[in-house]
Amino acid sequence: MSVGSEGDKTLEAICYRRGSLQLLDQRKLPLETLYLDIHDTNDAWDAIKEMVVRGAPAIAIAAALSLAVEISNLASFDGTSHDASVFLSKKLDFLVSSRPTAVNLSDAAVKLKEVISKAAATAKEANSVFQVYIEAAEVMLEDDVTSNKAIGSYGASFIKNYLTDSKNITILTHCNTGSLATAGYGTALGVIRALYADGALERAYCTETRPFNQGSRLTAFELVHENIPATLIADSAAAALMNAGCVKAVIVGADRVAANGDTANKIGTYNLAVSAMHHGIPFYVAAPLTSVDLSLSSGQEIVIEERSPKELLHTRGGLGEQVAASGISVWNPAFDVTPAKLISGIITEKGVITKNGTDTFDIAGFVRKTSGNL
Amino acid sequence: MSVGSEGDKTLEAICYRRGSLQLLDQRKLPLETLYLDIHDTNDAWDAIKEMVVRGAPAIAIAAALSLAVEISNLASFDGTSHDASVFLSKKLDFLVSSRPTAVNLSDAAVKLKEVISKAAATAKEANSVFQVYIEAAEVMLEDDVTSNKAIGSYGASFIKNYLTDSKNITILTHCNTGSLATAGYGTALGVIRALYADGALERAYCTETRPFNQGSRLTAFELVHENIPATLIADSAAAALMNAGCVKAVIVGADRVAANGDTANKIGTYNLAVSAMHHGIPFYVAAPLTSVDLSLSSGQEIVIEERSPKELLHTRGGLGEQVAASGISVWNPAFDVTPAKLISGIITEKGVITKNGTDTFDIAGFVRKTSGNL
Repeated sequence: MSVGSEGDKTLEAICYRRGSLQLLDQRKLPLETLYLDIHDTNDAWDAIKEMVVRGAPAIAIAAALSLAVEISNLASFDGTSHDASVFLSKKLDFLVSSRPTAVNLSDAAVKLKEVISKAAATAKEANSVFQVYIEAAEVMLEDDVTSNKAIGSYGASFIKNYLTDSKNITILTHCNTGSLATAGYGTALGVIRALYADGALERAYCTETRPFNQGSRLTAFELVHENIPATLIADSAAAALMNAGCVKAVIVGADRVAANGDTANKIGTYNLAVSAMHHGIPFYVAAPLTSVDLSLSSGQEIVIEERSPKELLHTRGGLGEQVAASGISVWNPAFDVTPAKLISGIITEKGVITKNGTDTFDIAGFVRKTSGNL
Repeated sequence: MSVGSEGDKTLEAICYRRGSLQLLDQRKLPLETLYLDIHDTNDAWDAIKEMVVRGAPAIAIAAALSLAVEISNLASFDGTSHDASVFLSKKLDFLVSSRPTAVNLSDAAVKLKEVISKAAATAKEANSVFQVYIEAAEVMLEDDVTSNKAIGSYGASFIKNYLTDSKNITILTHCNTGSLATAGYGTALGVIRALYADGALERAYCTETRPFNQGSRLTAFELVHENIPATLIADSAAAALMNAGCVKAVIVGADRVAANGDTANKIGTYNLAVSAMHHGIPFYVAAPLTSVDLSLSSGQEIVIEERSPKELLHTRGGLGEQVAASGISVWNPAFDVTPAKLISGIITEKGVITKNGTDTFDIAGFVRKTSGNL
């Protein structure tokens, strides 16, 4: 990665034009707006691992586009269309290894592999396969924004219908699920944006989201940028805020949703779900259907990545000065799993999945029923 | 306040000898061990307000001793014994204003006022009243350590009896309630120390305790210092830790306990209590009876202090570099109130107060029954 020019104020995490990709270095926000040039999949792998880019949808798209850029700029490729397909598949596997829990990333890789293997079967030249890949990656970028706007719209309508006092809605959210986590607009933060645009939002509350402070650095930044009335709280203050009657609903994003609705998301999500249940507050997950992994029957099958102890021991998510006592052990899981029983609804780009009066979600049924429409 | 010499490694928050008081500057821990000279009540007021000294018992003792030092070093006092009593009372009122929620501090002031007004009634000279005050403040210091050791001992026995698997006890605690928060040994951390000394503790878990990081800075420091097996977690990871079966009991301190057992303590305590209840984990408050305020019928009467937004916007509790987005509003309550219904027992220096099979604590009855014994 090399340091690129300073970006404008549009809060685009991913700046792409054919042959060129820049990622907003989210570790530097909110104090610096700095874009890094991503020349190839190696740069993208590092950017994902080091959290330059973050958020499950944004990671998938940035990864896919990095490979598009790499092949756009290849001086030459000495091989058949089949060789091109193998080359791309290996690069996609490598990209997936940068964040194994991100189902959007592995799903995107599977879909892109299907596209290129089909292309390889009929194409005469390697270059045609590359061209098909590049176009498919570009469609992912466009589709994500469309999908997020649909999530926002379905979520806002659903919540306004559910909450009787629909002019004074207050929402608590966690981590960052906005423009900075996606190709644009956002998932949970997209619902908040849509509620605000509808004049139904009184205030959004965002948690700090320790230890990487995605809430205080990124979500707060987006909310201030959009002039949405917003208040930052310590993660541990969420229960007190709920008890004070200040939260009408909680909306979070998802790293991965299992077939039964169990949801892996940023550490602390489960904590909020437990508190929401205790206070009788509805708890929603907002995520595109690409975050659903029907191959996992429940959240117990989700592997939770543990991150570096430095994130708790030093400021700025491990990059700054030491804060904690030397020699202390640390448990720093990146995610936790919120069981479906604590989740009121899953807001997707095809509508809101609810339990329909039962105790369980029928996500597979919802996917079947809605496939085809957007 | 002026900067004193570097202290040794005994973790004494309060270093007192007659005429001289030094407080360990806890804002500098764990990286620097620096003591500040406290010459008078003005210095102490600043030290309490700025969190040089913290923890309800330590605050009360530091405040009382600062006045002892001030009068020890008075060049002269031109007045009667009654004037001396009035002088001391005004100073005590001033000290109480530094931290209105700390009942130990206001209680200490009430008790010290009684002592000096009795002394003033019989003393011939102002100096005799001062002498009585100084001795009474010194007794507070000694009593606190004795009291903490009793809390540790009662708490450890109770928990060992309650938990069947008494050789592998794991305790989650919040904030700092150890040697650094008291005159020595600690309350909740005193129980952990006692369990460890008994060979019954497998591991202590401490939360970061945002936004001032008393857990990662101070509790982690004490636990490492004492070689107690200990792991630091983000506040928001507590529910996930409980769900993983790693917490056998939660023990926290108290800023103030109402007559019904409702407990004001560091923000995030209520969050832990809600999670503990959800997971069927016992939740204990460890505090000296001086933290009980029988004049408050419930926690609803407890005024919650709000602290500076800077604590969330900048690192090091507001003293370091900016982290959060500029322009975001902040809700930063210092404390929250945990209702008695979420509390399994209150561990005091006279024994453990339980609900005895009922739904409520009879704290007043316990105080009556145990007054006189220690």
